[in-house]
Amino acid sequence: MREAYQDQLGQLAERLADMCAMSGKAIELATKALLEADLGVAEQVISDDARIDEVRASIEEQAYALLALQAPVATDLRTVLAVIHAAESVERMGDLALHVAKAARRRHPNHVLAEPVAPYFAEMGRIAVELATEATDIIRTQDVARARSLEDADDAMDDLHRHLFTVIMDKEWPHGVPSAVDTTLLGRFYERFADHAVSVAKRTVFVVTGKMPGYGDEEA
Amino acid sequence: MREAYQDQLGQLAERLADMCAMSGKAIELATKALLEADLGVAEQVISDDARIDEVRASIEEQAYALLALQAPVATDLRTVLAVIHAAESVERMGDLALHVAKAARRRHPNHVLAEPVAPYFAEMGRIAVELATEATDIIRTQDVARARSLEDADDAMDDLHRHLFTVIMDKEWPHGVPSAVDTTLLGRFYERFADHAVSVAKRTVFVVTGKMPGYGDEEA
Repeated sequence: MREAYQDQLGQLAERLADMCAMSGKAIELATKALLEADLGVAEQVISDDARIDEVRASIEEQAYALLALQAPVATDLRTVLAVIHAAESVERMGDLALHVAKAARRRHPNHVLAEPVAPYFAEMGRIAVELATEATDIIRTQDVARARSLEDADDAMDDLHRHLFTVIMDKEWPHGVPSAVDTTLLGRFYERFADHAVSVAKRTVFVVTGKMPGYGDEEA
Repeated sequence: MREAYQDQLGQLAERLADMCAMSGKAIELATKALLEADLGVAEQVISDDARIDEVRASIEEQAYALLALQAPVATDLRTVLAVIHAAESVERMGDLALHVAKAARRRHPNHVLAEPVAPYFAEMGRIAVELATEATDIIRTQDVARARSLEDADDAMDDLHRHLFTVIMDKEWPHGVPSAVDTTLLGRFYERFADHAVSVAKRTVFVVTGKMPGYGDEEA
């Protein structure tokens, strides 16, 4: 009985890790669709998103059942609650990748991005995938030190995003208003993706230490 | 002992309602700061945000303690979990109001918004306050029918937001790129505020019925 309970806890964390990996795949493919104006890849991300939502719903059900039937305490309780919170963040990461894919589809066969800003998004995409991958590993390993160094990648994302913003707002921006608007929204999607990945890592720190690090300061 | 426990549950919901009311106040004042280029009001919203974050942290602590010490089941468990989720949404509503206030402060003494779009934001602000007020009442009354009619106000917000977007993307937009970018981001803040208010109402439906309505379809 005790063994089955420990199995269930382990399964819960593993399913969250799977879901996080799916969101990393989603942002990787969405970025490819964006940079290459690839409609097929965009459509794949769009249809795969439902799967991420299903996994989140099932994780929540499983977590609630554990709470109702097993009344976990201490670290086990923190684990279940952290998984519930983190699943909400990971679903949001999936939604943001979905928004990127939809933007690529909306403007196809044109590229959404003007050539000069494409390199920013190539790099933001790379960082986003790295963050999702790191978060996935942190869920599996519960390595608190890695959770803290995730913030460096998030800082890099914020720097890029700020840089991109000054390019868009520059009075020499020659690509017109619609392009500026699309680029602004896309930049925000990547920046929020990163914020949510950091959130997931912080929830893992909470499981291990019992404290949420730097609580409430994810986005200035 | 049982009475104290029921009190604690009631208190938890009441504090969430207070927090939701605070977020409604925040978006009301932030909208005023935006439309009137009022620095003092913007500063008030900015400094009041910390209070919303504190209430959220304390609600989460209280909810976790209830779970750990009382092992609630059935409707009581759903209440505690709904409060935990809803507090995260309400904190996000506060953050979005904060972003609006910061935009007003950033461009002061200039108005952020070009005159022709100001009426959109006056209306979006009005709807946002209505949504936060409705959500607050729904938390207090647990009225499932009202939770469902909240979606009408959210639809109105989405319509306005879409309309605003076509105005910004129109080739006749004469106010320049920076204004288009600011307006786009601000429109998104109000739209996301509404999404989160609907989320809070849905969590209340979950407490009463045991099912999350229309799960996973908050934002297309």
